[in-house]
Amino acid sequence: MSQKSFNLEIYLVTDRELSLGRPLEWVVEQAARGGVDIVQLREKSMDTRPFIEEGKKLKQLLKPYNVPLLINDRLDVALAIGADGVHIGQKDMPYRTARQLLGKDAIIGLSVETYEQAEEANQYDVDYIAISPVFRTPTKEELNTELGLEGVTTICKMSRHRAIGIGSIKAHNAGDVIRAGAEGVAVVSGICSADDPLQATRDIKEQVKKAKTVSADL
Amino acid sequence: MSQKSFNLEIYLVTDRELSLGRPLEWVVEQAARGGVDIVQLREKSMDTRPFIEEGKKLKQLLKPYNVPLLINDRLDVALAIGADGVHIGQKDMPYRTARQLLGKDAIIGLSVETYEQAEEANQYDVDYIAISPVFRTPTKEELNTELGLEGVTTICKMSRHRAIGIGSIKAHNAGDVIRAGAEGVAVVSGICSADDPLQATRDIKEQVKKAKTVSADL
Repeated sequence: MSQKSFNLEIYLVTDRELSLGRPLEWVVEQAARGGVDIVQLREKSMDTRPFIEEGKKLKQLLKPYNVPLLINDRLDVALAIGADGVHIGQKDMPYRTARQLLGKDAIIGLSVETYEQAEEANQYDVDYIAISPVFRTPTKEELNTELGLEGVTTICKMSRHRAIGIGSIKAHNAGDVIRAGAEGVAVVSGICSADDPLQATRDIKEQVKKAKTVSADL
Repeated sequence: MSQKSFNLEIYLVTDRELSLGRPLEWVVEQAARGGVDIVQLREKSMDTRPFIEEGKKLKQLLKPYNVPLLINDRLDVALAIGADGVHIGQKDMPYRTARQLLGKDAIIGLSVETYEQAEEANQYDVDYIAISPVFRTPTKEELNTELGLEGVTTICKMSRHRAIGIGSIKAHNAGDVIRAGAEGVAVVSGICSADDPLQATRDIKEQVKKAKTVSADL
């Protein structure tokens, strides 16, 4: 278990295409003002140079909020901008190689899409796992069947790591994911496509906090 | 000017799609047997994990031939496999950042598509420049107008760096590129799509050598 100090309750994964034509920086700033805990910059088809430029802008923007910035997949971009870490999936760089290249202080998160992958992740000193997808999602069509809330519970019980859920999580179901055992929720369209990303972040955070209070009371 | 010892006469840039369904490793091995001097692995749409696996295979394969392996664009892949260096284009990581991350011993090449970019490259301690494209090419549709042999001559005169040409270079025109001033030629389809990549490599090398002998005689 990592001893690094960072919050995972509301985790924003950026999606330029889902941001309704609004600049990504604006969406991220709104989320920061709304209380987002951590941001992952995900760009799947951008050239490296603009990706780095975007990363630098977000890093600068998030600094006053003390919100860590992770980069999806691309360690080169993370190294170039001095990001706080990376989030890697099962098709990305193998975890141990990523850790060697980034060092022990970097935050490294890993997506797990099956129980086998959750089991395997117990061998690694990842900083958190992302259980993916909790619900069916239009943003990751190629993914396995949804794991559901039962999947979240099962994986949280078998995993020695901090865990968040990802996949079609919004205010109305964020609490369920927490009650199922996750420490936090990763949100994509729930913030990026929200009419008011600041308010959407606040609403989701409120649901997460409420679910945690109830869980603690039980 | 770099003092690193590596040959640039015949420089293979891989292209999986142009390899006519034959495994990339086979094409690269044929080129190595035919006398290729340096290989750049270029993958523009591959996931990071298989990209790293492919890079490891090629590195292993090229080792007995003492042929350096460069990675196109992706410093993360280059770092993960311990490649000899990278080749970067104008949309990739800025040169100085790449040098900081890879260190002084790495080979770093830079594509230049205009006289202005060739001028700018004189500020950097790149190990070579690739003049791109010398001739019109179907593999890089988005590129600027071809620079032509006159462009090669102009850039080679203004540049303090070792230079190769790239863009539709095959045996029939390789000698022209050398006579125009380049030290070597980068070849994509001329080897990847050749019926016999080994023989194609030999044929191009012969033309390069012949042009150099003539140039030296003048």
